[in-house]
Amino acid sequence: MTTPKGLFLTFEGIDGSGKSTQARRLADHLQAQGRDVVLTREPGGSPGAEEIRRLVLEGDPDRWSAETEILLFTAARRDHLERTILPALEAGKVVICDRFADSTRMYQGLSRGDLRALVDQLHGLMIGREPDLTILVDMDPETGLSRAKGRQGTEERFEDFGPELQRKMRAGFLALADEFTDRFHVIDGNRDMDTVARDIAGVVEQALV
Amino acid sequence: MTTPKGLFLTFEGIDGSGKSTQARRLADHLQAQGRDVVLTREPGGSPGAEEIRRLVLEGDPDRWSAETEILLFTAARRDHLERTILPALEAGKVVICDRFADSTRMYQGLSRGDLRALVDQLHGLMIGREPDLTILVDMDPETGLSRAKGRQGTEERFEDFGPELQRKMRAGFLALADEFTDRFHVIDGNRDMDTVARDIAGVVEQALV
Repeated sequence: MTTPKGLFLTFEGIDGSGKSTQARRLADHLQAQGRDVVLTREPGGSPGAEEIRRLVLEGDPDRWSAETEILLFTAARRDHLERTILPALEAGKVVICDRFADSTRMYQGLSRGDLRALVDQLHGLMIGREPDLTILVDMDPETGLSRAKGRQGTEERFEDFGPELQRKMRAGFLALADEFTDRFHVIDGNRDMDTVARDIAGVVEQALV
Repeated sequence: MTTPKGLFLTFEGIDGSGKSTQARRLADHLQAQGRDVVLTREPGGSPGAEEIRRLVLEGDPDRWSAETEILLFTAARRDHLERTILPALEAGKVVICDRFADSTRMYQGLSRGDLRALVDQLHGLMIGREPDLTILVDMDPETGLSRAKGRQGTEERFEDFGPELQRKMRAGFLALADEFTDRFHVIDGNRDMDTVARDIAGVVEQALV
């Protein structure tokens, strides 16, 4: 018997798009099929990266410059990759990660467009690895916003900025899907959850064959 | 009257070389001459960088890979540069910093030689700035080690490795002085403290003219 090939899947999308729910449903679905699945998330995903996450996200949101924040997120991603993602892939597991480098590209490109080049250079130097498959759960910005606002414990860093920011974030993710056509799959998240989950499972099962 | 030009000075040297004492003495000396001086240190030197310092230096020394550690130190250095060093230089002050990028170059080059190129690339991308003048307090490794061991509260990350490591660190700093001849001044730290302080003050006063 050959070891099944590991697969590195990421979920991206605006707040309230349902991507975290869908990532969990996909993990359950694949586990029910007998696959070894690691469900993880960024920022965080390993003990060290979770500590860096707290350092970045707690306290005054302006206390780090955009450049320092990118360095901290890259440090967290490096730790997450080394300690969680790569060992699981080497063991032939399916890694499902809620947000990865595309979120950094989108957020930093949005807040200060000139930082996208820096994000890419740092990624090339310190991370290198891209997902095998990225599911973008596309969602109407207003619907996403009202869903995200209805939740408790959500990070509030961007949501307070309202529907205009949500529209820009959605456009930013769709632009990334156009840029990385090889690995992005855009899924319409405006439908009922079961239909969305079924679509995603179909895409992933094809990649696992 | 013209604003005096800011000057960015760094001190480097092995543990127990007396560099921190000499940095403080130089700061006192220049302040007595009426100059505005900022005495700072790395890792740390700004509130955010001090938090990152704690994250890196506390806990199990093996919990971060060399690459993640370099990213964290670079994040701390970026914050220190933005919040402490550059504003002071722009105000025409003399900034005296106990350790800077040369310490990272030396330590990482020592522990895994292949990381020196990565350190340099990260530095070029995210820091850029080099000191105007670097004082290397050169010290006999055995003397340095016994001095460092006699202190309390010293970081123990490298000192336990003994005289062989101290010799390598000394050689690493001297190699950097050979590489960056424009800004490095090697001062013999094996003499009495007053003589060493007088030599350093002479070098710095020439740079301030």
